[in-house]
Amino acid sequence: MSPFTGSAAPTPAWEHLRLTVDEGVATVTLARPDKLNALTFGAYADLRDLLAELSRTRSVRALVLGGEGRGFCSGGDVDEIIGATLAMDTAQLLDFNRMTGQVVRALRECPFPVVAAVHGVAAGAGAVLALAADFRVADPSARFAFLFTKVGLSGGDMGAAYLLPRVVGLGHATRLLMLGEPVRAPEAERIGLLSEVTDEGGADEAAAALARRIAEGPALAYAQTKALLTAELDMPLAASVELDAATQALLMNGEDYAEFHAAFTAKRTPKWRGR
Amino acid sequence: MSPFTGSAAPTPAWEHLRLTVDEGVATVTLARPDKLNALTFGAYADLRDLLAELSRTRSVRALVLGGEGRGFCSGGDVDEIIGATLAMDTAQLLDFNRMTGQVVRALRECPFPVVAAVHGVAAGAGAVLALAADFRVADPSARFAFLFTKVGLSGGDMGAAYLLPRVVGLGHATRLLMLGEPVRAPEAERIGLLSEVTDEGGADEAAAALARRIAEGPALAYAQTKALLTAELDMPLAASVELDAATQALLMNGEDYAEFHAAFTAKRTPKWRGR
Amino acid sequence: MSPFTGSAAPTPAWEHLRLTVDEGVATVTLARPDKLNALTFGAYADLRDLLAELSRTRSVRALVLGGEGRGFCSGGDVDEIIGATLAMDTAQLLDFNRMTGQVVRALRECPFPVVAAVHGVAAGAGAVLALAADFRVADPSARFAFLFTKVGLSGGDMGAAYLLPRVVGLGHATRLLMLGEPVRAPEAERIGLLSEVTDEGGADEAAAALARRIAEGPALAYAQTKALLTAELDMPLAASVELDAATQALLMNGEDYAEFHAAFTAKRTPKWRGR
Repeated sequence: MSPFTGSAAPTPAWEHLRLTVDEGVATVTLARPDKLNALTFGAYADLRDLLAELSRTRSVRALVLGGEGRGFCSGGDVDEIIGATLAMDTAQLLDFNRMTGQVVRALRECPFPVVAAVHGVAAGAGAVLALAADFRVADPSARFAFLFTKVGLSGGDMGAAYLLPRVVGLGHATRLLMLGEPVRAPEAERIGLLSEVTDEGGADEAAAALARRIAEGPALAYAQTKALLTAELDMPLAASVELDAATQALLMNGEDYAEFHAAFTAKRTPKWRGR
Repeated sequence: MSPFTGSAAPTPAWEHLRLTVDEGVATVTLARPDKLNALTFGAYADLRDLLAELSRTRSVRALVLGGEGRGFCSGGDVDEIIGATLAMDTAQLLDFNRMTGQVVRALRECPFPVVAAVHGVAAGAGAVLALAADFRVADPSARFAFLFTKVGLSGGDMGAAYLLPRVVGLGHATRLLMLGEPVRAPEAERIGLLSEVTDEGGADEAAAALARRIAEGPALAYAQTKALLTAELDMPLAASVELDAATQALLMNGEDYAEFHAAFTAKRTPKWRGR
Repeated sequence: MSPFTGSAAPTPAWEHLRLTVDEGVATVTLARPDKLNALTFGAYADLRDLLAELSRTRSVRALVLGGEGRGFCSGGDVDEIIGATLAMDTAQLLDFNRMTGQVVRALRECPFPVVAAVHGVAAGAGAVLALAADFRVADPSARFAFLFTKVGLSGGDMGAAYLLPRVVGLGHATRLLMLGEPVRAPEAERIGLLSEVTDEGGADEAAAALARRIAEGPALAYAQTKALLTAELDMPLAASVELDAATQALLMNGEDYAEFHAAFTAKRTPKWRGR
């Protein structure tokens, strides 16, 4: 993504989620608390479009994805999505499932780290949204459930069969995707699914603090780290080493690297510009 | 694999292993207990052929692989295999080693989940057979040993150097394959090699229960989950997301997905058909 | 690599590191203890060239990489490297960053296992050198820090964004590379970054013992195991199984495999030749 823009105007209002931007941190909140933030067609489309727009906004340096109310996200709405898809033709079904996958790709490919703030249920598509984030900050109430087979669908939804084995290993991923059983915070931490466990009720605040820290830091270095982690999962060793060399040569021409050296020499804290 | 058949007749009797099929669950038992179920040329060939035949039998929805007697499988028989291979020419050696690898590919590519029921020793090729299963259900007596280097061979046998790093990570996999030391149940569980640990002597029963649950469930959803997990280890993110979308669109036209919605709406348990 | 040599003469003296070779074990020591073994341009170049030369020396069967003094390696020297790179042009920056990546490739591709002996700090490039080893033997004082972002650079340096997710999973790797925080021995062990934890001060001795064991064992089997682990991270399942079959067929013609069978039959310990 690139901040260059043409004729496209920014979306004036996001109807299916809540967005705030503060000092380089975008906070996206799934806000249908009476439905455990179940996703609708509109919510998926807004997530896809919002991530694309934010990716063109250089001022955004970190994103927090959270859920309002009792849980993070219960996944696709049983009535509005499962019911509706039963009436769709093949082309419509492909369109829908491609859109959900595009949200995951956008989370992995946007040029800023994404911090999922998880409390309570993260089920189905909600679990995959958290999985696609760079950090999963969760409180002890967090409960992940990749429950796709429980509705008769494939556990490989929205890239989950790609991502989960690369996060927790093929054995755990098979068990989680095949059986769809809930994974509570202690197990999630033990198998490497969580980045940070907070006190009860502390996930939103800890996620915001992490995002602030990232936004105030060497943001271009963070963005490139994310891009390389995403790309090198799909690359061989020799090419990865070459990509690292080119990236590092680029950043060694950047302002933040020079600032580090100046600050180190002067025994002061660096003032990061994110360049 | 596909249940379409041509002229090939099913094998009337399996001489080198024991097979039962009951309500969609195939149970394959390595049954040379006096030799710790050491594998022979015939046993490898039967495993390869049996998996191919069962893959054409749509009625089989899950498979349990277990061992009779004191252990799961001690690997290739020292006398019958190691001794014999010393007298083989290059083409014969390739034929043998390709066959063992084909068993592993068949375990990963068959259209039903495979549950290894492990007690006691799972050594050499026995450890790799368990590794290639989707689930490893083990009791506390389970002891894995990828002991190939201890007989002067490469630890990368039958795909082990591909599979093990993807299950337990490259660090543990290097240690296990390079040194060939035994890994007991507690360590195996800690590093992600086990799916479930049972009470002493409980692996066969727990594996059978898991297989029954899979066979009675949305079997097509399970089969596709397995297929995507296998395929997406070798695929980039963008292609994986596209494969997931096409698969999910397909399953959304299936009977089980509609049944889930009908059952949910009627507040009853779904009756899965596996379609 | 291959022990065939042409006109190239071996390097008479390594100025930027210390090398001893004893009974097939090469021990490479980073030896600037007053600078916590910070790496210089010369040290990187020597590591690259030394690994290439040792790879042509069939007598070397294992390598230990350790650090003298209070720690393993504090990474690139702030004055000699960071300062100097600020004055480099684009081509020079690429040359430098390619060289550091070549050291990592050499560690992964040399035909003998590498054991990193880690005590105290393993930071920046020092952490990546340890990560690229086959074994990480560490004492409780070990402290890894992939601190690249803390100097304004990408966490994907020298292949770290390729290697670390394959060792500890994408979640932990993202946290470690993005934030650059120190990882102490207990956490490093828990997430799979360590092969062995020793008593305080015991890393060098335990690493030497492991290397001796490897050098005295079936060295060709170990070398092939390493080569397959490295190659199959970048290969699909079917090709990996074929590579394993060809490798195993080759080793079944080797002396060590026959020796195992003879020793087993005679109920004696095998005398490994590494062939």
